[in-house]
Amino acid sequence: MTRNFLFDQIQKKQSFLCVGLDTDINKIPSHLLDTEDPIFEFNKQIIDATHDLAVAYKPNIAFYEALGSKGWESLEKTMDYIPKDIFTISDAKRGDIGNTSSLYARAFFENMNFDSVTVAPYMGSDSVKPFLAFEDKWVILLGVTSNEGGKDFQFLECEGKPLYQHVLSKSKEWGSADNMMYVVGATRPEYLTDIRKTIPDHFLLVPGVGAQGGDLQEVCKYGMNSQCGLLINSTRGIIYASSGKDFAERAREEAMKLQLEMKAELERCKVKS
Amino acid sequence: MTRNFLFDQIQKKQSFLCVGLDTDINKIPSHLLDTEDPIFEFNKQIIDATHDLAVAYKPNIAFYEALGSKGWESLEKTMDYIPKDIFTISDAKRGDIGNTSSLYARAFFENMNFDSVTVAPYMGSDSVKPFLAFEDKWVILLGVTSNEGGKDFQFLECEGKPLYQHVLSKSKEWGSADNMMYVVGATRPEYLTDIRKTIPDHFLLVPGVGAQGGDLQEVCKYGMNSQCGLLINSTRGIIYASSGKDFAERAREEAMKLQLEMKAELERCKVKS
Repeated sequence: MTRNFLFDQIQKKQSFLCVGLDTDINKIPSHLLDTEDPIFEFNKQIIDATHDLAVAYKPNIAFYEALGSKGWESLEKTMDYIPKDIFTISDAKRGDIGNTSSLYARAFFENMNFDSVTVAPYMGSDSVKPFLAFEDKWVILLGVTSNEGGKDFQFLECEGKPLYQHVLSKSKEWGSADNMMYVVGATRPEYLTDIRKTIPDHFLLVPGVGAQGGDLQEVCKYGMNSQCGLLINSTRGIIYASSGKDFAERAREEAMKLQLEMKAELERCKVKS
Repeated sequence: MTRNFLFDQIQKKQSFLCVGLDTDINKIPSHLLDTEDPIFEFNKQIIDATHDLAVAYKPNIAFYEALGSKGWESLEKTMDYIPKDIFTISDAKRGDIGNTSSLYARAFFENMNFDSVTVAPYMGSDSVKPFLAFEDKWVILLGVTSNEGGKDFQFLECEGKPLYQHVLSKSKEWGSADNMMYVVGATRPEYLTDIRKTIPDHFLLVPGVGAQGGDLQEVCKYGMNSQCGLLINSTRGIIYASSGKDFAERAREEAMKLQLEMKAELERCKVKS
């Protein structure tokens, strides 16, 4: 998917919502457990209930790996089911030496047709560049993460600037704002001004709104650019809004609340259709 | 597996060889492609040919993911086949927010009974600690990696020392030398002295001997400690030594060459059985 297409979808749906499909067999409503593939059944109903409100879906691969080959099948079926005009993110945080990163890229970009993969930066350029070799596919590199442990290394002062700034400024040379995005946690909006100085045009994938405590308006205020430039992720607040038979309806309600806030933000920042 | 058990095996086999099972469907001998599960068949024959010479096997998960649910099945069968007294490493380089890291840990430690998982450090303590919650299981944290891109961030001077030293000194507090190891590339032996100052007792997983150009003797000279403290990995030099019907015999020959060098190193450093 190209950046222009993604932006068109944002304008069409008046939304930059990404719904995380972190589908945990221990958390989905119990009535689904009798179905042939409870994980896929859950995802299917969530997608049916939210696809007009979301511009992206983000399965976290750990949830599928935890179920072995059966989980992988559920993921494959989910990917086949998601409408083709919705941006898909393999939240895998992969990264390895060159030939191995190419295989990860193949697994997600070719076998399952994901639009993008999240990638960890520690091993540097030759661990990331293989993912960039695929046309109309994206790398979403970890920048500033939303979790507490993000403070362990990402803000170390290194040669005049924090480590995360080195990650941004070095890595942006490996691709462009048309094939790279960055993960910036919603729990860290105060860094967005500095982040935008380094990467004004790149899309940011922003997890942490909702269950992790991030503030949507703050993120938009400091992070939005002229092509929106944000994909805001919400997972638990939407997909686990209810653990009963109304889980899909309640998911839709929560997604709609966020979409209406996003519509207001798009208007406020004058990013209009 | 405990550290004492691992060291016993090293002494028993006079070897600290780890064989990488990076089994690529495009590289294995063509006569195997007619079998029901060519990946597993290849692994089975490699294991049969080398299990007395190796103290560890290290499947790189990318190679199995690249084949989707079928690849995951081949990995599960491989893990069932490996003798229980051999240390197994899931080379996955995982890491995510806490609840997600717990799922990765479950996938590898419970579902497939791996002894250890490689983990990326960028997201900090709460992305790593969930892996440490499992008894007799290990985290192998990326320290100094063997690839060219390792230079992009790992040697940045941060608050008085290189980034990798921060990774070592901070992370070693999260566990102990009985449940944590570190990846240190064989292509970077000059850093071993400094590394050993920070982590004298921890085991090091050392990839890059062989195809990537690392020197075994240099690594042993600077990296070995009184309980050996090294797992030296070789992959392509062993498993792809031949692409013909003699691939398993040739794998054994190459493994034996390394094991004999290792035996000499163990004697030289007076780590005797």
